[in-house]
Amino acid sequence: MRLDHLAIAVPDLDAALAFYRDGLGLTCARVEDVEREGVRIAFLPVGESEIELLQPTRQDTGIVKWLAKHGPGMHHVCLEVGDIQAAMARIQRAGGEMINPEPVRRPEGTLYAFVHPRSTGGVLIELYQRPPQP
Amino acid sequence: MRLDHLAIAVPDLDAALAFYRDGLGLTCARVEDVEREGVRIAFLPVGESEIELLQPTRQDTGIVKWLAKHGPGMHHVCLEVGDIQAAMARIQRAGGEMINPEPVRRPEGTLYAFVHPRSTGGVLIELYQRPPQP
Repeated sequence: MRLDHLAIAVPDLDAALAFYRDGLGLTCARVEDVEREGVRIAFLPVGESEIELLQPTRQDTGIVKWLAKHGPGMHHVCLEVGDIQAAMARIQRAGGEMINPEPVRRPEGTLYAFVHPRSTGGVLIELYQRPPQP
Repeated sequence: MRLDHLAIAVPDLDAALAFYRDGLGLTCARVEDVEREGVRIAFLPVGESEIELLQPTRQDTGIVKWLAKHGPGMHHVCLEVGDIQAAMARIQRAGGEMINPEPVRRPEGTLYAFVHPRSTGGVLIELYQRPPQP
């Protein structure tokens, strides 16, 4: 298992980059607009992990409601697993509660599913399985 | 730079371990009582990082107040840096605000300093410099 990324929700991506890039000295590998999720994401590698800064780009998304309720902060932590079905089954055997009852497939082939913060000590955890490499 | 650990504050360490160890399948490398900080910490390695679960063991600590205010959740993120003085100077040049104006030394020689969440998009960030290896 590997800590894939930490996702930090912010209202202003440029202000956040002033800290993470200029202040911490991380490299911003790329900035992506993910239209279907209504977010602009800056990806900053840190060792084998990444920090992702998420800024909403539409007003009708969950991340906007989350920001209005919590203010800026850690939105979720993503762990890469080898076999997401096996990981989900193990969590459920241990009494953990999945938000997604089945893995969801992103267009590029990644499978993901979120664990409810009730089960994790208050942290929204994403499980993530990469697509098989060709 | 490396993501050293994620610290998650929980009221009940055993319940949290039921998820992180039994549910996620992580190994609990050790559990330590840190008397001077009033916490019991479970350390669970994940790749090159660790998840630390913190449970208060006294009622007069900051972590108790934090839990009362926020409920269980992500308390801070720790980044290992090579030169903490240089890292702090760079953050301050970029307009970031340190909670500790000077690095603090732990008994085992580690230096640490916290960056204020106002500067980081709402995340309490610890910088950490290991002691020189003998």
